[in-house]
Amino acid sequence: MEEAVKTLADIGEFGFIEFLRSKFNVNLDPSVVLGIGDDVAVIDVGGSEYLLATCDSQIGDVHFPVGLIPPYDLGCRIVEVNASDVAAMGGTPRWALLGLNLPSQTSITFLEEFYTGVGDSLARMGAWLVGGNCARTKQELVIDLFLMGTVPKNQLVRRKGASAGDVVLVTGTLGKSRAGLEVVLGNMGTAFTENVSVVERAKQSFFHPRARITEGRKLAQSGFVTAMIDISDGLLQDLGHLASENQLDVVVDIARIPVDPLCEEIAKQVGADPLVWALIGGEDYELLFSVPGDRVPELMAWLGHEATMSSSRTISPCSESDVLTTPITPIGFFREGSGRVFLKGLNGEIIPSEAFIGASGWDHFRGGNS
Amino acid sequence: MEEAVKTLADIGEFGFIEFLRSKFNVNLDPSVVLGIGDDVAVIDVGGSEYLLATCDSQIGDVHFPVGLIPPYDLGCRIVEVNASDVAAMGGTPRWALLGLNLPSQTSITFLEEFYTGVGDSLARMGAWLVGGNCARTKQELVIDLFLMGTVPKNQLVRRKGASAGDVVLVTGTLGKSRAGLEVVLGNMGTAFTENVSVVERAKQSFFHPRARITEGRKLAQSGFVTAMIDISDGLLQDLGHLASENQLDVVVDIARIPVDPLCEEIAKQVGADPLVWALIGGEDYELLFSVPGDRVPELMAWLGHEATMSSSRTISPCSESDVLTTPITPIGFFREGSGRVFLKGLNGEIIPSEAFIGASGWDHFRGGNS
Repeated sequence: MEEAVKTLADIGEFGFIEFLRSKFNVNLDPSVVLGIGDDVAVIDVGGSEYLLATCDSQIGDVHFPVGLIPPYDLGCRIVEVNASDVAAMGGTPRWALLGLNLPSQTSITFLEEFYTGVGDSLARMGAWLVGGNCARTKQELVIDLFLMGTVPKNQLVRRKGASAGDVVLVTGTLGKSRAGLEVVLGNMGTAFTENVSVVERAKQSFFHPRARITEGRKLAQSGFVTAMIDISDGLLQDLGHLASENQLDVVVDIARIPVDPLCEEIAKQVGADPLVWALIGGEDYELLFSVPGDRVPELMAWLGHEATMSSSRTISPCSESDVLTTPITPIGFFREGSGRVFLKGLNGEIIPSEAFIGASGWDHFRGGNS
Repeated sequence: MEEAVKTLADIGEFGFIEFLRSKFNVNLDPSVVLGIGDDVAVIDVGGSEYLLATCDSQIGDVHFPVGLIPPYDLGCRIVEVNASDVAAMGGTPRWALLGLNLPSQTSITFLEEFYTGVGDSLARMGAWLVGGNCARTKQELVIDLFLMGTVPKNQLVRRKGASAGDVVLVTGTLGKSRAGLEVVLGNMGTAFTENVSVVERAKQSFFHPRARITEGRKLAQSGFVTAMIDISDGLLQDLGHLASENQLDVVVDIARIPVDPLCEEIAKQVGADPLVWALIGGEDYELLFSVPGDRVPELMAWLGHEATMSSSRTISPCSESDVLTTPITPIGFFREGSGRVFLKGLNGEIIPSEAFIGASGWDHFRGGNS
C-alpha cells in the first residue's frame, strides 16, 4: 500500500511555521534581532530604532468575499491587518509595498477605489506606499502587502517576555468582525436588514478594521508591557500563541471578555452565542498584552483610564480617534504551566479552553474557524 | 450604447504604473528617496547606507509552468528575480520575507524543496529569510517575495542619470532564458532532446537565473555608471524604460548584441531568429547600464576587462562565480531625443525598434511577449 502524500492541510499553518523556524532561524546574522515566528521581523539597521518588516495577504473568497466588499474598504483592510502586526510590537508603520496579483479583466474603477483605500489607511498612520508589483493571475485575486515600520530600540515589545502572575489585558471589544461577516454573508435574514445602522456598523467592523497603532505605541512607551500580540486568529488562539511562546498557562475570566454590542445583537438574531464569536471569531485586530499584576493601576493611569476591574461583559464601542477612550480590559492572568489556555466560567470553575469550545480559531490550511 | 468597462488589459502594466506614480509620488516623506517607478524603493533610515525594498511575484502558469519547474529551482527563481532589482541599484540583498499563497493540498515535499531553494539563493548572496506569511488560495500558486537590501548612499545607481553620448552596455549574454522556455515547453521536438547538455543548460537558464549582484556592486563602486536597470521584460523594452526615464533616445547596434550560444542553437532547431529572442525574450536578468563614452576604457580596466569593442555577435557563456569573467558588452549609445529606441542594422541603417520587430517585450496585462 502506498503512503498518502503529506500536505499542508495535514500539518496546518502552525506546523508549517514551526518547520520554517527550525529551517531558517539558525545562525542568523546579528542584524536579525527577531526572525520568523513573531508578528513581524525585527532588523537592526543601526541608529536608535529597529526596522520592523511584515507581510500579510488578503485572498479573494478566502479572506473576504469577492464582489461583496467595496474596493475602497479592501484597500484599507490590507493595510490595517498588516499595520496591526506592527502595532503589536509597539511600532509605527512607515513604508509599504503592495504585491497585487489579479486577473487582467479587473476594472480600472476597482483599482482606483482600492488604491484610494490603501492610500487613505496609510495616510492615517503616517505611512507611505513606496513601491510594489502587479501581475496577472488566471482567476484569483491575491493581495500581498509588505509593511515596514520603526520602533525605538528600548520600546520593542515581543510575544515573549511575560512572567507568571502577569495580568492579561485586551484593547477594545471582541466579536464585532465575526458579526460583520455574518451580515455580509447574508445570514441575518431579511427582517434584520431594516436596522440599517447596526448592519452598516457590523459590515464596517469586518470590511474595515482599524489597527491599534496609537494604543500600541502608548503601551510600548509605558514600559509596563511584558508581551503583546494582535488578535487576528481569534482571542483563544492568540492567547495560545502568547502562552506557548512564554511557556506559561493563561487563565481567562469569561465574565470579563469585552463582547461588542454589535456581536451581542447579531448573534441573538441568528441564534448564536456572542461569547463564542468573541472567543474564536478572529480578525478583530485588537491588542492582547500582559503587564505585571502590581503595575496595572499605573498602566491605567498612564493611559488615562480608571483602573477598574469591571465585571460587565458588555462595553461601549470604542472611539478610534483617541487612545484615552479606547477600552482596556483585564481579562485574565498568566500562571506556571506549559502553554495552555484555560477559561474561568461564571461559577468559578476553570476548564481547558478545548473542553469549552471545539475549534479554537482560524487555521489557514485546515480551513474555516468554527 | 453603453461604454465598455475599462480594464487593466486596456491600460497595460505600464499605464498602470503611471497611474500609481501620479497618485502616490506626491508630497512624499523626506525619508522616501525614491518611490514608485524605479526597480526598487529607496529609503533613508539614517546612517551611511540607504535601505532598498522591492517585491516581485511568480505566478503558476503565468511566470512559470506548474509541474514542469522543480520546486527547488522555483525557490531560487523567486529570490533571484528580486535580487536582480536590488543589483540594478548597485545594492546588496540582505533580508527577505516570503508571501506564499497556495492550495492546501500542496505537498510538504514541494515546500521543503522550494524553501531549500529560497534558502540557498539567499545564502549565496549573504541574505536572510526573516519572515513572511502563508495563506490558502482556491487553486493558484502565487508567490510574492519582499526583498530588502542596502547600498552606500554615494553608490546608489538609478534608472535616471544618463546623458546624450553615454555608451550603453550589458552584462553577460541574452536570449538564453527564452531558449530555455522553448525547451521546457517541449517545442524542441524529440530529435533535440538527445543533446542532454544543451537541454539542461537551457532549462537552467530559464528555471534558475542568477542575479548579477557582484557585477552590480562592482559597477556601482566604479563611480562611472550613470543609469542602470535589469533586463527582466526584454532588452528592447528595458532599453525603452531607460530611454524614457532619461528623456533620451537610444541607438543599439544589432551586430553587438551578445546573443547566447544556447539561444543560437535552440532557435536554429525551432526555426526562430535568435536575435529576436535576444532582443525581446526577457527574463535574462542581466544588467543594462550606461557610462560616459570617454570612461568606457577606465570602466573596463576597473572590471579587469580588455576594453575591446568586439563586433562578434556570439560570446562565450559567462561564469557566474567571477565578475572578472562576466562579459561586459557595449551595445549602443544615448542621444538627444524623446525616449525612443532605435536599432542600427548590419548595413548601418538606423530604424525605430517598432519597425524592426512587432511586439517589444512582456506586458503583464496585455499578455505574452512575441
